[in-house]
Amino acid sequence: MTPTGLEALIEALRCLPGVGPKSAQRMAYHLMQRERKAARVLGESLLHALDVVRHCQRCNTFTEGDLCERCSSAHRDRELLCVVETPVDMNMMEQTLSYKGLYYVLMGRISPLDGIGPRELGLDRLVARALDGEVREVILATNFTNEGEATAHYLTAMLLPKGVSVTRIARGVPVGGELEYVDSGTLAQAMRERRVLPE
Amino acid sequence: MTPTGLEALIEALRCLPGVGPKSAQRMAYHLMQRERKAARVLGESLLHALDVVRHCQRCNTFTEGDLCERCSSAHRDRELLCVVETPVDMNMMEQTLSYKGLYYVLMGRISPLDGIGPRELGLDRLVARALDGEVREVILATNFTNEGEATAHYLTAMLLPKGVSVTRIARGVPVGGELEYVDSGTLAQAMRERRVLPE
Repeated sequence: MTPTGLEALIEALRCLPGVGPKSAQRMAYHLMQRERKAARVLGESLLHALDVVRHCQRCNTFTEGDLCERCSSAHRDRELLCVVETPVDMNMMEQTLSYKGLYYVLMGRISPLDGIGPRELGLDRLVARALDGEVREVILATNFTNEGEATAHYLTAMLLPKGVSVTRIARGVPVGGELEYVDSGTLAQAMRERRVLPE
Repeated sequence: MTPTGLEALIEALRCLPGVGPKSAQRMAYHLMQRERKAARVLGESLLHALDVVRHCQRCNTFTEGDLCERCSSAHRDRELLCVVETPVDMNMMEQTLSYKGLYYVLMGRISPLDGIGPRELGLDRLVARALDGEVREVILATNFTNEGEATAHYLTAMLLPKGVSVTRIARGVPVGGELEYVDSGTLAQAMRERRVLPE
């Protein structure tokens, strides 16, 4: 019989995304056998993070204060508000070094199958944020999946009547991409949204 | 910037087997956003398991007492000692309902590439266990991988000179297996180790 403390750990590990019963068992045995010190650090980090990590009151990303570093920075363009699904997406955008405005992190996307609608996402808070008087343009940078597109459409419908300018990041062939390997939906979109080149 | 408590959690999650930087980040965000209660349970289970889980003094598997349930049971055949690599392998063997002897769990296998030799595995303890006077047959049930086979060879060389009877579980075509889909190494082995059928 597996001992009780170990059984409880195996069960608890299943809250991790993508971890089923077999992986949970493997992880638990691995931690108990080879990584006891790291396992203690993990347990303590979890409890510590739960204590200190909360949401930025302006952009909704994770932070430990009332405002995250970006929202409290004096060096960001407060007229631009980029809407992303997750903090990871925000980091990806930051890594491009091409955007100096602020963000709003939805922490999800509209997904009726998972029971996540506009209310569950708290889209009202985003609308209030976009209408603070400073924001001039809301840039929708949700994913180009069905859920991300639905979220973008919904947000457009909410924001346009309020007189905010709304844009969507461009779709098309990736930089360095070869037409041969791009799916036809992307290629059709790239054709439809072609740009006039400057003379 | 990612907040510090969250960064520490992401780093700590990487002690889990098969979890790289991207998965660790995904897991941390998921826990903080959607699974706070489960994350607390996980943190506490980890610390609790580290406190209570140790090794059975006879068979080396995980247990919370001095001896595991099997080693302290009066209903097992104490003349048979089955050597397996992990507690999972022991559970698999138990599920067959075909073995009523005792076990010794190596908690690993000889793996020179990972710096795990006979000494690191503590094979001396297994030899001492096999020579307790009660054990009549040591059944090697390590995996049929290179490492498992090497471990079995090494154990055979250690145990045979001490006068213990050593056996190895059978290799061959799996039950329900079709020859067409069995690899040729297995098939060759099944041919070499063919049995004489009773009249």
